[in-house]
Amino acid sequence: MAESQEILLQKIKEQGDLVRKLKAAKEANEKIQEEVKKLLALKSQLVTEDAVPQKFTLKTPKGTRDYNPQQMAIRNDVLQKIIAVFKKHGAECIDTPVFELKDVLTGKYGEDSKLIYDLKDQGGEILSLRYDLTVPLARYLAMSKITMLKRYHIAKVYRRDNPAMTRGRYREFYQCDFDIAGQYDLMVPDAECLKVVTEILNFLDIGKYVLKVNHRRLLDGMFEACGVPADKFRTTCSSVDKLDKSPWEEVRTEMINEKGVMPEAADRIGKYVIMNGGVELAEKLLKDEKLSNSKAAIEGLEGIILLLKYCELFGIKDKILFDLSLARGLDYYTGVIYEAVLTEPIKIGNEEQTVGSIAGGGRYDNLVGMFDSKNKQVPCVGVSIGVERIFSVLEAKLAAGEMRVRTNEVDVYVASAQKNFLEERMKICTELWDAGIKTEHSYKKNPKMLTQLQHCEDNCIPLAVVLGESELKRGMVKIRNIVSRQEEEVPREKLVDEVNARLALLNTKGINGV
Amino acid sequence: MAESQEILLQKIKEQGDLVRKLKAAKEANEKIQEEVKKLLALKSQLVTEDAVPQKFTLKTPKGTRDYNPQQMAIRNDVLQKIIAVFKKHGAECIDTPVFELKDVLTGKYGEDSKLIYDLKDQGGEILSLRYDLTVPLARYLAMSKITMLKRYHIAKVYRRDNPAMTRGRYREFYQCDFDIAGQYDLMVPDAECLKVVTEILNFLDIGKYVLKVNHRRLLDGMFEACGVPADKFRTTCSSVDKLDKSPWEEVRTEMINEKGVMPEAADRIGKYVIMNGGVELAEKLLKDEKLSNSKAAIEGLEGIILLLKYCELFGIKDKILFDLSLARGLDYYTGVIYEAVLTEPIKIGNEEQTVGSIAGGGRYDNLVGMFDSKNKQVPCVGVSIGVERIFSVLEAKLAAGEMRVRTNEVDVYVASAQKNFLEERMKICTELWDAGIKTEHSYKKNPKMLTQLQHCEDNCIPLAVVLGESELKRGMVKIRNIVSRQEEEVPREKLVDEVNARLALLNTKGINGV
Repeated sequence: MAESQEILLQKIKEQGDLVRKLKAAKEANEKIQEEVKKLLALKSQLVTEDAVPQKFTLKTPKGTRDYNPQQMAIRNDVLQKIIAVFKKHGAECIDTPVFELKDVLTGKYGEDSKLIYDLKDQGGEILSLRYDLTVPLARYLAMSKITMLKRYHIAKVYRRDNPAMTRGRYREFYQCDFDIAGQYDLMVPDAECLKVVTEILNFLDIGKYVLKVNHRRLLDGMFEACGVPADKFRTTCSSVDKLDKSPWEEVRTEMINEKGVMPEAADRIGKYVIMNGGVELAEKLLKDEKLSNSKAAIEGLEGIILLLKYCELFGIKDKILFDLSLARGLDYYTGVIYEAVLTEPIKIGNEEQTVGSIAGGGRYDNLVGMFDSKNKQVPCVGVSIGVERIFSVLEAKLAAGEMRVRTNEVDVYVASAQKNFLEERMKICTELWDAGIKTEHSYKKNPKMLTQLQHCEDNCIPLAVVLGESELKRGMVKIRNIVSRQEEEVPREKLVDEVNARLALLNTKGINGV
Repeated sequence: MAESQEILLQKIKEQGDLVRKLKAAKEANEKIQEEVKKLLALKSQLVTEDAVPQKFTLKTPKGTRDYNPQQMAIRNDVLQKIIAVFKKHGAECIDTPVFELKDVLTGKYGEDSKLIYDLKDQGGEILSLRYDLTVPLARYLAMSKITMLKRYHIAKVYRRDNPAMTRGRYREFYQCDFDIAGQYDLMVPDAECLKVVTEILNFLDIGKYVLKVNHRRLLDGMFEACGVPADKFRTTCSSVDKLDKSPWEEVRTEMINEKGVMPEAADRIGKYVIMNGGVELAEKLLKDEKLSNSKAAIEGLEGIILLLKYCELFGIKDKILFDLSLARGLDYYTGVIYEAVLTEPIKIGNEEQTVGSIAGGGRYDNLVGMFDSKNKQVPCVGVSIGVERIFSVLEAKLAAGEMRVRTNEVDVYVASAQKNFLEERMKICTELWDAGIKTEHSYKKNPKMLTQLQHCEDNCIPLAVVLGESELKRGMVKIRNIVSRQEEEVPREKLVDEVNARLALLNTKGINGV
């Protein structure tokens, strides 16, 4: 039916165009009326079709989901905490369209380009949905000729990947990016990105973590020193990137069989990628026989040493691990790379959930230049928080009854004990709303008292204003505390003040919080 | 290049699959190596291609735009105010994917269906970008079997329309929707939607407005009473909808020539659609010779009378205008329809900007049922705030210098008067960040004092901590008030307390606000 509906709409459009053309050409009225008749016949089909109920599987597209009010409450809470940290570091906010010209995305993601969603060619530009927020940022900087920016961007991105939704892997998912663009001194903004990640992970309080760091120049130097030809650095890097999921033996085989690395070179790489540690490791490697002959390796190691020093000044040294197996998949990184990993599985009920990587990023100094006609570079460094995994952990806790969320913020419910108080309830709601108090009432004329109080309990609404005939005659209304079930009569005309006084008390007591 | 890149990626994928298949089948090593060689040859092409700088017009897709930090500050402020009102009325928040199965959108938007963005068929489901938030809500309610919900949803929607970007008409634009779903008493939730719109427009304070209301049943009854056949009600309604932009003569011509309405019927309609007023008009029309014979018209008029009564109780009677020319384009409305219109052009500098319609909505009782296999209905009513037009007014004010926004919230800038204080600045930033204070410093090792102070002034940062060698030797640092330029020495170890005390003072004075 979708198909025939579309064809019909197209026919109507064409017939309408024809009628308009005939009119414009002042053709004979008879001729025009004949075509109008055809148009009307087509349109009458449309009305009939609209009325037919539709038959198809009711679902969201593969790899996507709705967020219900509880999930939204979790999501908003997490995002607010992340935004608070971004703002604490002085970041500004930008936004870009959900789709880009396809050319903008082309050649930026290496083998992952196959995961990009394209839009249908409906005439006009060829568009694709954004794959991340980094390439749009680079396009924005180049297009607006901005050479300095500290910005955050929180938005959904799209990847036609195999979804694993229970583990927080979706085709439509949020990224929360913090990036610093500008020509600055070595490792100063890079270290601040790590500080930002630790503040966020501490604030979210979802478990112990480690922040792995490495350097693309060191990786290049290491490949060079091990005897990998320069044109194979990037693909070899992709193999190393798999070390967090696959054992060395598999990665080694891939390097040799698929990437064309010589077995001896692979074995040399294998001796490095098992190393991790702190500044002492970096200093030891600076004296390493092979690495010390590579300019790139020295550059990378000196960068790491400086980064670790700044991390110590920022008080986060104990969270950082220099790890030679960290490679990151994306092509565009040129300097330091990061990845935050939860080090312990999270206990939810009787089950343990392994979360793994929860943030990642690095330096990409050449990406903006790819969009500039004169290849003018704007060096950038940034980090992206993997919030979907955090959402999925918190949603699992919610489902296991280990946490509770409020999905609305209503403070007062206006209830009536007898029939025919709808208009009086509306007047009282108006007074409370106009005083800025979060209020609701039943949309039924004569709701049952029990239903109204149940609604307050279900929704954690702390106060109810209860209208009764006898009280109103005396110019009074009752205020009921839902938790304690205590009721007090207050003068009708002082209601707003009385409600505000009680809310202030509840808020200081913390009963009203989530 | 995009094209060849894609073909290449596809070839690599296929060749990779082949290699894996051969390995899995434990084929002769010679044979495998031959195919691996081919794979490597393909991959080496890829690396070369990636390095070529790209040549294409640097722009966002037609009808879309980036939001820079100032525009984002405006946008976030407007959205926060709208959300505050939605929450005041107890609304919960939901979200749905940016795309839906194409079938979900088919047959919901009448002639506007041609404006829907489709995704390319890349194998798998046939998807379209959402056109509004109402149809996804109906799909969500039916799919989740929810029969009662008061929700808000703020998200971007997509229409392949002719953009008029200076007037806030985009192909990607925000909608802010508030809807009440559930079987309730007549006009009770409907009136609250109007209350919500008035609270938002008052809060945003962007000019005088009127809230036009009408009723689809009254329109149907009117068409019936005027002699329009039932199968032409919806298309005649689309013509009436054009009355806000076109004179009656044009609309009349369209009705007769394109919609097939008899000239006498059109003339009868013409006498009604010029009417507008309050409850007295509705009561007069109840006694109207023609309308009083139509069951639908009576139903619509009685609804309007009840709605206007509730609006009086809500204290918004003076904002509401019952207007028989209001029709609304979308097919799915079944009861009351609304539209909020700014009644005066907005003065920006020497120019006047006509904004027009700024919110709209209505009742749609049959939409959820279209998604239910048993056609089970969930009656709904809602309203959508046209924030893009509000953004465009405020952005024009900003550009004309009539308002100012802060794009970051930094309270303290850590500056150094002499060279070689980077590490000391980092330590102080850490203390301030860890105490929750919004802080930044220069990412350069040795920034100039003037540049640092200029940054504070440009960004409205109220305080600077200024490090100097002689003060630090005495265990002191200076705190500078950027506006008054006064500096005070405070003990280094009491810095956090001293900063907090000054910020508290500035905040009560309101100097630090935007």
